Amino acid sequence: MGKNFIVGQSGGPTAVINASLAGVAAAALAHIRSTGSGTVYGMQHGIQGFARGEVVDLGAQLDTEAAIALLKTTPAAALGSCRRRLPAAADEPQVYEDIFRRLQQLDIGCFLYIGGNDSMDTIQKLHDWGAAHGSDIRFVGVPKTIDNDLAMTDHTPGYGSAARYIATVMKELLCDSLVYDEKRVTVVEIMGRNAGWLAGAAALAADEECAGPDLLYLPETPFDVEDFVRRVDALQQKRKSVVVAISEGIRLDDGRYVCELSNTSASVDVFGHRQLSGAASTLSAILNSRLGAKCRAVELSTMQRCAAHLAAGADVEEAFAAGAAGVKAALAGESGCMVTLVRSSTDPYVCECATADIHAIANAEKTVPLAWIDTENATVTKEFLDYARPLILGENAVVWANGIPKHFVVK
Amino acid sequence: MGKNFIVGQSGGPTAVINASLAGVAAAALAHIRSTGSGTVYGMQHGIQGFARGEVVDLGAQLDTEAAIALLKTTPAAALGSCRRRLPAAADEPQVYEDIFRRLQQLDIGCFLYIGGNDSMDTIQKLHDWGAAHGSDIRFVGVPKTIDNDLAMTDHTPGYGSAARYIATVMKELLCDSLVYDEKRVTVVEIMGRNAGWLAGAAALAADEECAGPDLLYLPETPFDVEDFVRRVDALQQKRKSVVVAISEGIRLDDGRYVCELSNTSASVDVFGHRQLSGAASTLSAILNSRLGAKCRAVELSTMQRCAAHLAAGADVEEAFAAGAAGVKAALAGESGCMVTLVRSSTDPYVCECATADIHAIANAEKTVPLAWIDTENATVTKEFLDYARPLILGENAVVWANGIPKHFVVK
Repeated sequence: MGKNFIVGQSGGPTAVINASLAGVAAAALAHIRSTGSGTVYGMQHGIQGFARGEVVDLGAQLDTEAAIALLKTTPAAALGSCRRRLPAAADEPQVYEDIFRRLQQLDIGCFLYIGGNDSMDTIQKLHDWGAAHGSDIRFVGVPKTIDNDLAMTDHTPGYGSAARYIATVMKELLCDSLVYDEKRVTVVEIMGRNAGWLAGAAALAADEECAGPDLLYLPETPFDVEDFVRRVDALQQKRKSVVVAISEGIRLDDGRYVCELSNTSASVDVFGHRQLSGAASTLSAILNSRLGAKCRAVELSTMQRCAAHLAAGADVEEAFAAGAAGVKAALAGESGCMVTLVRSSTDPYVCECATADIHAIANAEKTVPLAWIDTENATVTKEFLDYARPLILGENAVVWANGIPKHFVVK
Repeated sequence: MGKNFIVGQSGGPTAVINASLAGVAAAALAHIRSTGSGTVYGMQHGIQGFARGEVVDLGAQLDTEAAIALLKTTPAAALGSCRRRLPAAADEPQVYEDIFRRLQQLDIGCFLYIGGNDSMDTIQKLHDWGAAHGSDIRFVGVPKTIDNDLAMTDHTPGYGSAARYIATVMKELLCDSLVYDEKRVTVVEIMGRNAGWLAGAAALAADEECAGPDLLYLPETPFDVEDFVRRVDALQQKRKSVVVAISEGIRLDDGRYVCELSNTSASVDVFGHRQLSGAASTLSAILNSRLGAKCRAVELSTMQRCAAHLAAGADVEEAFAAGAAGVKAALAGESGCMVTLVRSSTDPYVCECATADIHAIANAEKTVPLAWIDTENATVTKEFLDYARPLILGENAVVWANGIPKHFVVK
């Protein structure tokens, strides 16, 4: 087996994908120190950059505890990312021949890839090619996605921090929404095209001093515009400020996205450019025209995946542990697998790393169980809250300098 | 002089307007304890609610250090707010007669009002009416606005926290924007209709590891669409990701807001409702149609004024001190004034509270000096950065419970 490690990041960034990178580097460097030889390479822009030879010596940059600690609190993908899916090996074998030649040149023994669904597809294809061609390189995936939609794992690193961001900002927005003694509706749009894990986190804003959002809609169940308008109208008879949280991916019964309702050919601006509106601004426009309600659409936008200043301490540590567990699994001879998080207890919260066959994970998508969605009251159930609450706990050890957070930059 | 205090909040919320409320309450309660009688009333929904008799006994709710500390970290206006401007006394004297009758009934000696321009207009009118009618009630304003546009004060409580939010999130968005190896433009829209103090804070994201936004536009100088498109095009020849920060209030040479460019009668959705787009989405649409650039518009939205989790410690303490200084001024016999912040040194930062005549403040608007705007390079100057940097320092002592911040709720 080759003596070196290589690690890459792929797919959309999260607040803690670099914590997993730090975990991979720390565990690999510890192994290298114990054996006396080897290094940790980083591929830039994932498998896409690797195929162009974009490799850095990560070990040399992460050889101090301070560097590891700073990387742990840095958002986005420090190595750069990509959205490349590898072609089927049968279609383009030369792609695989090229990748494996490069891996051999670098004397790679363990290949770690931190990412979501598409990234696990990459691990699966590389493992399968290697296994079919006598390679002894171990390919191990480390889970990452704010969407929490990976199969075979209790949850994914990255979700807890995004959920903490959503719950915290939702509580602050609810606080803000109550200040004026006037009728208004606030519609908050949350990421998650097909899975409502993130939108559901808005309900975590509720506590003894905050009622949480008045209505909450996940993409798993059909969205009924008429019912929605009626509910908001009824709520406004009782209280002046109504706050609604929705997934960006909510759809009508006929399968159309809600945002498609306003993105018609009639919505063309002065440049002849079609205006794209989100689901929140679409619903705001509907409420305004139907109820005359004063509406405000708030998109939590990219901040959901990069607000490391609000990352959950629990999530940062699990992301770090998942990276280290990936190295441990590879060193133990595992390949074609992904690190999983296995929860044995929710109260007290106990969760440990394990691994699962990559073939059961790649390209699968885990959505919120319908039993956890309370469509009657437009919210999520206690089961959802009990599941998600432990994942948002704890503060991130952000290093502040001059009023802004310090970040680690890979050179 | 009446033995009781009354305090209200008015205008848009900030992350630290409750810190000023806590400062008022703490100083007033200290005085009450020393004299042995009196209480602190809170008016709900500002002068609008007061005129309807909406008054709570705030002193009874804030009689512990823990309560004061929690209120200090709670965003938005705990007493509720209003956007009511009082009519001219000559037009509607009965409004004033009614307010002063209520103040006498409550045995009020000191009236503190925390707010921005419109709120200072209220202080001015009440003071002038009182002075003309032999009242000995003291009317003192405590400054508050994220916009930082009040005259006669170095800066306003609330600005530093919003600026810290903007600088931090901008740095995180810049970090996120670099992960993909593909061409894209991110346009970040920042509050501030007429004053660029908030937009300028985006430049505070720059440090040794972050270049800051590539282009930054304030509302004080005319916005040239053609020049903007050329600059983005030129930047994209050099690097793939371009990040632009703009004020929501940027205007063309002819005075039209940039956002008006897309809000034409042609922008009508399927409901016949006119689509309102912000400046960022308008510019994204322009770049997309002109350069074929992949664009993303991000609005920092309401989070700028309510993200207490990211409030600047320096700002929280100054807001608290300003509230206390308002009580001190009133007890010393001052009326018809606003607390000001006077900076005697920037490095080291030294700033103290004083007061200024309300007539020089109400309805004036302080914008960014043109000499601090570098239109040549589409950014702000070192003078701006030196001015703003001390205001964003320090962390807020947020109390976390179950992964979300605790807030104080006035009953």
